[in-house]
Amino acid sequence: MINIKENEKLNVKNHSCAHLMAQAVKHLYPHAKFWVGPVIEEGFYYDIDLGDVTLTGEDLPKIEQEMKKLAKDGKRIVREEISKEEALKRFHDDPYKIDLISRMDENDTVISCYTQGDFTDLCRGPHVESVKELKYFKLLKVSGAYWKGDSNNKMLQRIYGVCFDDEESLNAHLQELEEAKERDHRKIGKDLGIYMMSDLVGKGLPMYLPNGFIVWNELENYIRNKELKRGYLHVQTPPLGNVELYKTSGHWEHYQESMFPKMEVEGEEFVLRPMNCPHHMVIYGNDIHSYRDLPIRIAEIARDCRYEASGALKGIERVRTFCQNDSHIFCTLEQVEQEFKGVVDLILECYQELGIENYRFELSLRDPEDKVKYHHDDEMWNRAEEMLRQVLKDLHIDYVEKIGEAAFYGPKLDVQVKPAIGNEITLSTCQLDFCLPAKFDLTYVDHEGNKKTPVVLHRAVFGSIDRFIAYYLEETKGKLPTWLSPVQAIVIPVNPGVHSEYGEKIKESLQKQDIRVEIDSRNEKLGYRLREAQMRKIPYTIILGDQEVEANTVSYRLFQSKDTTTLSEKDFVKKLKEEIQHKKLKSE
Amino acid sequence: MINIKENEKLNVKNHSCAHLMAQAVKHLYPHAKFWVGPVIEEGFYYDIDLGDVTLTGEDLPKIEQEMKKLAKDGKRIVREEISKEEALKRFHDDPYKIDLISRMDENDTVISCYTQGDFTDLCRGPHVESVKELKYFKLLKVSGAYWKGDSNNKMLQRIYGVCFDDEESLNAHLQELEEAKERDHRKIGKDLGIYMMSDLVGKGLPMYLPNGFIVWNELENYIRNKELKRGYLHVQTPPLGNVELYKTSGHWEHYQESMFPKMEVEGEEFVLRPMNCPHHMVIYGNDIHSYRDLPIRIAEIARDCRYEASGALKGIERVRTFCQNDSHIFCTLEQVEQEFKGVVDLILECYQELGIENYRFELSLRDPEDKVKYHHDDEMWNRAEEMLRQVLKDLHIDYVEKIGEAAFYGPKLDVQVKPAIGNEITLSTCQLDFCLPAKFDLTYVDHEGNKKTPVVLHRAVFGSIDRFIAYYLEETKGKLPTWLSPVQAIVIPVNPGVHSEYGEKIKESLQKQDIRVEIDSRNEKLGYRLREAQMRKIPYTIILGDQEVEANTVSYRLFQSKDTTTLSEKDFVKKLKEEIQHKKLKSE
Repeated sequence: MINIKENEKLNVKNHSCAHLMAQAVKHLYPHAKFWVGPVIEEGFYYDIDLGDVTLTGEDLPKIEQEMKKLAKDGKRIVREEISKEEALKRFHDDPYKIDLISRMDENDTVISCYTQGDFTDLCRGPHVESVKELKYFKLLKVSGAYWKGDSNNKMLQRIYGVCFDDEESLNAHLQELEEAKERDHRKIGKDLGIYMMSDLVGKGLPMYLPNGFIVWNELENYIRNKELKRGYLHVQTPPLGNVELYKTSGHWEHYQESMFPKMEVEGEEFVLRPMNCPHHMVIYGNDIHSYRDLPIRIAEIARDCRYEASGALKGIERVRTFCQNDSHIFCTLEQVEQEFKGVVDLILECYQELGIENYRFELSLRDPEDKVKYHHDDEMWNRAEEMLRQVLKDLHIDYVEKIGEAAFYGPKLDVQVKPAIGNEITLSTCQLDFCLPAKFDLTYVDHEGNKKTPVVLHRAVFGSIDRFIAYYLEETKGKLPTWLSPVQAIVIPVNPGVHSEYGEKIKESLQKQDIRVEIDSRNEKLGYRLREAQMRKIPYTIILGDQEVEANTVSYRLFQSKDTTTLSEKDFVKKLKEEIQHKKLKSE
Repeated sequence: MINIKENEKLNVKNHSCAHLMAQAVKHLYPHAKFWVGPVIEEGFYYDIDLGDVTLTGEDLPKIEQEMKKLAKDGKRIVREEISKEEALKRFHDDPYKIDLISRMDENDTVISCYTQGDFTDLCRGPHVESVKELKYFKLLKVSGAYWKGDSNNKMLQRIYGVCFDDEESLNAHLQELEEAKERDHRKIGKDLGIYMMSDLVGKGLPMYLPNGFIVWNELENYIRNKELKRGYLHVQTPPLGNVELYKTSGHWEHYQESMFPKMEVEGEEFVLRPMNCPHHMVIYGNDIHSYRDLPIRIAEIARDCRYEASGALKGIERVRTFCQNDSHIFCTLEQVEQEFKGVVDLILECYQELGIENYRFELSLRDPEDKVKYHHDDEMWNRAEEMLRQVLKDLHIDYVEKIGEAAFYGPKLDVQVKPAIGNEITLSTCQLDFCLPAKFDLTYVDHEGNKKTPVVLHRAVFGSIDRFIAYYLEETKGKLPTWLSPVQAIVIPVNPGVHSEYGEKIKESLQKQDIRVEIDSRNEKLGYRLREAQMRKIPYTIILGDQEVEANTVSYRLFQSKDTTTLSEKDFVKKLKEEIQHKKLKSE
């Protein structure tokens, strides 16, 4: 979505539109007093003191109408420069302006005002030439906002709006806004009972509700089974560790600002873990390894906790605790190529099966000139970077090289996805690490009996399960594939009094196949129950009436379809079971 | 196991035996100097300075022999009281004794010594009459111990031993010791690669290794599937919460000493959670509920962290972080009976399937006289207690009533098991709670439209998964049922060069059925490989030679059996798959 604040032309236009809105408000509410009206990413707003009046969304159309009338009149917007003294005099009956003027820099001897017809506002500008240029705008919402953001102060009315150059752009933007609202995982998450947040539990600490846990658990099993087939070994390590662990790994020195504060217990200092590598290093170090044992792929759906500023928190996308789909592969330098290939292959396999198509690869390399940042072993860097390039070439993968973007410990590959709304995010990653194993004195015995340090690949396919669910809910608009749907089918007897018995029978035979099914036998109208099943985005709505009972058949409608298909009970159960087993993306 | 220190008679005897050992050591190592020799739970020890000599277990028999000789001589043990001055004089060439004497209380003007033949030791006593009484003893081990426990001091030799009244008791005790060592989950856990501990990661924070995670995951799936079938709803909540949450629940006031210290982040105070009830209360409170929705059974395999003194930590039985198999059932008072019954039924079902037989029920009730401790609503208490009794009666369950042992919030049922070693532990619990829901303002609307407070049942079947694994490893001596075994079968080609191909084929056909199987094609002797499979307690050892290859059959031995059974490949795969699917306790 376009960032209005950063677009020079639209920035000015939106600023002028804020003035136009203020003028219209003043016409409709003559006692209105104005605080500030800045341009923001999404357009503009103005904070207004309307005395006892509280606006609602319903008041916005008449303000818009007045704005349109004023714009048609086409008054010029005229800049005027006055002294601070004069400004204080001119706005003497407006405490908000007096407050603004008084706080202006002592050296700011000249103050600018902008006037359009009967409306003058204190403003630095710049503005468009004439209100005539302000044609394609929309007021978006109104909300309360404390003066200066302090809840001890008076509550002002904040009206949001946006302005474009032409009708087409405005409409496209409004549609995008509408879609974004509908697609926002926070809305879908609430509508579908995926997760909840509570300030009492704590900011940024999501709680997965029963439906959400089903999705979570399916995803966890999905990725774990894929890993099992590829020889990963799963472990389970605690979500905290001794501070010494992070001093050894270097996180304490380099990453502490993203960590929770430490806790002292009986002289030991513990800290919630932000990453899992140190724990997995200790596990590797628990045994003596020969080159014959490598590669060793340690994997875990691992709970991490990081400090994120409360302002940066967003649903389950940006949180303070999350679970990484993490793995650390310990191997020899010679095995890096094959292991890296395996990881990329796994990522691509998952993306294909989950229908993720809008992604791109970024290969972050060192800057060979930067001798300070990068672990200095040119030969190893060159070899590793060449290996990664070769793998991507072998797999016919397009990628962008980012020089100087590698971590200090080695090159990495990131997979970036563009969500339906918002900015690009990193979904998967595979990072080579030449440094950490040495910090933990990890070794293996090579075929000549010498101790060598293994290389480590840090990798995550889903990044965090939490963020992946957020992304996937937005991608699918909450219409998950059947295998991931919390409720996979709902049985609706046309006449509950008559058809419920058959409905229960169908429900039971689906349950026997571990299909997640409900029955809605409430005494509500059929249309009402069908609509509710749609709202809940249940893949299969099974409608059972006289015909189905008589013929021992099942009639079903797919989500968002009006077509009804009828199958024998046996065929239907088989079809649905297969769809789930094969994790099909589309129902038929 | 008997506690020697607390048994008055054995205490004295063991103390005297320590002196006898010192005398024998002095005969064998004339330069030996003695620090202290106390009686402990397990018997006695003595810390000895032997100069440059370091003892090993192999030195103990000759010390024992010398002790036996001295005991046979039958010298009397004579007490003598001397002044501090005289003591300092008599022991002037023994810095350890001088240290002890100097630190004695100034008022302690008389010091006692005990002499037997040529050996005198400073000691408060009492002792047996004669060394003749010391016949049935055993020296158990020797280890290093820093003088006064300070690693800056000299390392002394600590010899442990134990003494009994008769040979039978001694032998029984030695056997118990041997068994306990073999059964200790810390030993089995290490031998089978179940978990590891590391001081760098932190005391009391277990890390489950690949084999341990398999056991964990199987148990988690087992109990979760049982719960699903009984209408539980699974959630996932974070392992920490805002301090306010625990102030609301009362844990902050009443349970803080068992909690980790709080962490402040951006003005919010977080704390690792010791229990999951508050999170589940908030989830219930997220929706409006009608009596028609109840009961609501919220369940979670939930991570908790508690402060335990480092001295109390024990393997994965007593830890600082663990996962409860927790649930909170929200219901009406009328539903308590049925829900309680459901919980007891679930517990019994699991115990039966897991072969747990040595358990007993304890019903903890209030003390009706204690008006301070107990939530005062006599009618509710009476009704609840009567309901619980009725359920236990209906289920024909024997139980013990413990008056005054109930929590302040309601009566509870605990299931106590007696592990193979160590003290009785609570494995399962079901607690009624009349108080917590009100603290969180939880309500439901009854059939008359009135707001009511639900009752809550806190329950756990496995208690914590960690503790259950510890218990179960000790119960089964590490020989888990096949469905829980990390490796379920191992294929051993008699001659790897010849039979490995067929072995791989068998391995693959087992893997296709999701059976956890390995192949051992190393160029080691058959006997060696068979022994190793036994050591790893793998349920099925599949031995494949010429006959099997020719006839396309599988010959197998069960763990700890010498019998070989031969089946067709198909029958064997089917048999093994069924055993796993039905979670059979015994292999056939």
